[in-house]
Amino acid sequence: MKPVKVGLLGLGTVGTGVVRIVEGHQNDLQSQTGSPIVIEKILVQNKSKARSIQIDSSKLTEDPYDIVHDPEIDVVVEVMGGIGNTKEYILEALSRGKHVVTANKDLMALHGPEILAKAGENRCDVLYEASVAGGIPIIRTLIEGFSSDRITKIMGIVNGTTNYILTKMSQEGASYSEVLKEAQQLGYAEADPTSDVEGLDAARKMTILSTLGFRTDVALEDVSTKGISAVSSEDIAYAKRLGYELKLLGIATSQDGFISVTVEPTMVKNTHPIASVNGVFNAVYVYGEAVGETMFYGPGAGELPTATSIVADLVAVVKNLRLGINGQHAVGTYKEKKLKTDEQISNKYFLLLHVDDRAGVLARITQVFAEFDVSLESVLQQPNPNNPDAEIIVITHDANKAAMKRVLHAFESLDVIRKVKSVYRVEG
Amino acid sequence: MKPVKVGLLGLGTVGTGVVRIVEGHQNDLQSQTGSPIVIEKILVQNKSKARSIQIDSSKLTEDPYDIVHDPEIDVVVEVMGGIGNTKEYILEALSRGKHVVTANKDLMALHGPEILAKAGENRCDVLYEASVAGGIPIIRTLIEGFSSDRITKIMGIVNGTTNYILTKMSQEGASYSEVLKEAQQLGYAEADPTSDVEGLDAARKMTILSTLGFRTDVALEDVSTKGISAVSSEDIAYAKRLGYELKLLGIATSQDGFISVTVEPTMVKNTHPIASVNGVFNAVYVYGEAVGETMFYGPGAGELPTATSIVADLVAVVKNLRLGINGQHAVGTYKEKKLKTDEQISNKYFLLLHVDDRAGVLARITQVFAEFDVSLESVLQQPNPNNPDAEIIVITHDANKAAMKRVLHAFESLDVIRKVKSVYRVEG
Repeated sequence: MKPVKVGLLGLGTVGTGVVRIVEGHQNDLQSQTGSPIVIEKILVQNKSKARSIQIDSSKLTEDPYDIVHDPEIDVVVEVMGGIGNTKEYILEALSRGKHVVTANKDLMALHGPEILAKAGENRCDVLYEASVAGGIPIIRTLIEGFSSDRITKIMGIVNGTTNYILTKMSQEGASYSEVLKEAQQLGYAEADPTSDVEGLDAARKMTILSTLGFRTDVALEDVSTKGISAVSSEDIAYAKRLGYELKLLGIATSQDGFISVTVEPTMVKNTHPIASVNGVFNAVYVYGEAVGETMFYGPGAGELPTATSIVADLVAVVKNLRLGINGQHAVGTYKEKKLKTDEQISNKYFLLLHVDDRAGVLARITQVFAEFDVSLESVLQQPNPNNPDAEIIVITHDANKAAMKRVLHAFESLDVIRKVKSVYRVEG
Repeated sequence: MKPVKVGLLGLGTVGTGVVRIVEGHQNDLQSQTGSPIVIEKILVQNKSKARSIQIDSSKLTEDPYDIVHDPEIDVVVEVMGGIGNTKEYILEALSRGKHVVTANKDLMALHGPEILAKAGENRCDVLYEASVAGGIPIIRTLIEGFSSDRITKIMGIVNGTTNYILTKMSQEGASYSEVLKEAQQLGYAEADPTSDVEGLDAARKMTILSTLGFRTDVALEDVSTKGISAVSSEDIAYAKRLGYELKLLGIATSQDGFISVTVEPTMVKNTHPIASVNGVFNAVYVYGEAVGETMFYGPGAGELPTATSIVADLVAVVKNLRLGINGQHAVGTYKEKKLKTDEQISNKYFLLLHVDDRAGVLARITQVFAEFDVSLESVLQQPNPNNPDAEIIVITHDANKAAMKRVLHAFESLDVIRKVKSVYRVEG
């Protein structure tokens, strides 16, 4: 049997993992696909650098076109990251009939439709399971497992860094900045953590998941995004006291053909299965009209989980090659995109207000809620141990986002409110 | 586009759900597969019976061969259950080139290899996602998501009835018989609950999961099975006090090519994600060498989850039909079956002993453990509030099953032990 030849773009930790798995599991892979799989060429930045695995140096190249222009290469596996050049290499590979497996969430979130269209023209596969929640086969689950259902909600903890930080803050009562520093030391957070902590990484993943789940081309700019850098240990302590955990959740909902996708710190009832997903683990909760509640849990990143997921995609490409059916499994995004307006978005909210500690304050505040038709589930007023203000904690019933914005706007000019300390979405 | 014609064997609650989904989601299904899907004929026991859905009576038949011999039928969906006749109908359908989708775990656990072989001969698909954990796409996950990894452990809560009973006993401190009665009234347990409560249903599902996960033909009789009918509320109270939940777990492990599959009530550390799977929900925890811990959670049964899963399989068959590749995705069980002996099986165990309340008893008991080389993690002796005995609770370190059997055998002739009240496997 003729071996399937793979060109690997990138040899960082994930790329190294791919080489290890393909070499170490050669028998299993061949039993499953019927073909040997050979890593033929590898793009590196510097051929003479020392490596943690032994690789025949004749396989290494510093020129990407050695791979994407090589007629012998059947499949390009992209694990170099980045957007600009990487996109060019992938489009070039596709235009020459090579199949592509990528872990690049940034690329797929920003240029997915263009890349998938090019793949379609050339009857090529583009698989990208590893781009979201590395160790969880959520993409094939959304495409195949839910093919006969209508997904109405996807909630994801899809960023391990922020979940690690929030878990530590919750379990140890530590401050955001302390835990971030520790996460950086442990290698769980980057030196510049912006993309993770401001929710951008999660937003890219939610773009990919909601596109697949709702069969609609969701763009990154459709995702309303807020990170965790303003979360205080006080907020988390209140959440716990009320029976909630604070999580950075991506939430995508679809109702009567209108969708909404957000990433924001959210209070989740502690009985909800996603509330107990801790540390660097990821989880994706999917609600289907027929199937009801399901959840998929696993590692979100890491050399081996990500590499495993890439090799599973590679196996799928090789099976398709043997059957001669590449390029035919792409998911149609056949539904028109209609985004919910703020008036159509309905959530429960938690508010923590610092207010004057005098009579009549609560009445004036509840009056504002009533004026904008936001009804309240619970209200708690208490002295603030740290300063002369009082604190008022409110949890609303389901309220539309537009009404909540009006309430918050009115609070700005309400003299009894010293500060709107925190506002969070509430789930479950 | 020529419609794909489906023959449905059975029109109980699941069959009715299949009809509802195929009719209600016709546009989505056609967008995904490129073909209309038509339910052409339906096998019922009594054509004149009143039904909860409107069905053209000309589609109903009381003769299964009207369906399996009809050259127009492309796919047979089997939701009638049973083994003897049902197997004949399915084999007959396959021999005539019809593809099969089934939810029948009993049939697949007992006759899976024969049915899959017949399908292979005739280049037909046999898909059976709904046979295990109805609402969780665990079968395609094991086949595709883990294709590049080596699964070393599968733990499943795969029977909703027993999980409901154990959850209620844990949350309310109620007795087994009380909760079973309530479950029967609610329709969560059958009038004859044997198959569920004695672990037989779970064993059938673990046969299917371990065959797929380990790529080895595991037979039902390879599964060591124990049910929950002897679980007392006292056992559950002890489990909770020690930080465990008692769950009926199917556990399949593979180590150095040797496998073991069991179903038994097991104490699971309450920090393990599977410990918080409550009520009728199912979950399958899969440990892959590369990916590490993953878990898949969802409804285990129910009309709509099961029907959804069946229609997802139907979509896969129709896609394969359009691509002309049916019968080519079956999973090879290319690994020889080697079962672990008791000497190779290693677990932690919990024991609750009723003993004479006098000096030296603990010493004699711990001596027996030492004699058979079972070391202990913790030991607690306390008076028993309900009778004049004392209680000794032991949790062992990892011990091999053969040694534990020797210990239990020796306890039979140890005069200071009045009763070995409970023995449970401990996980996590």
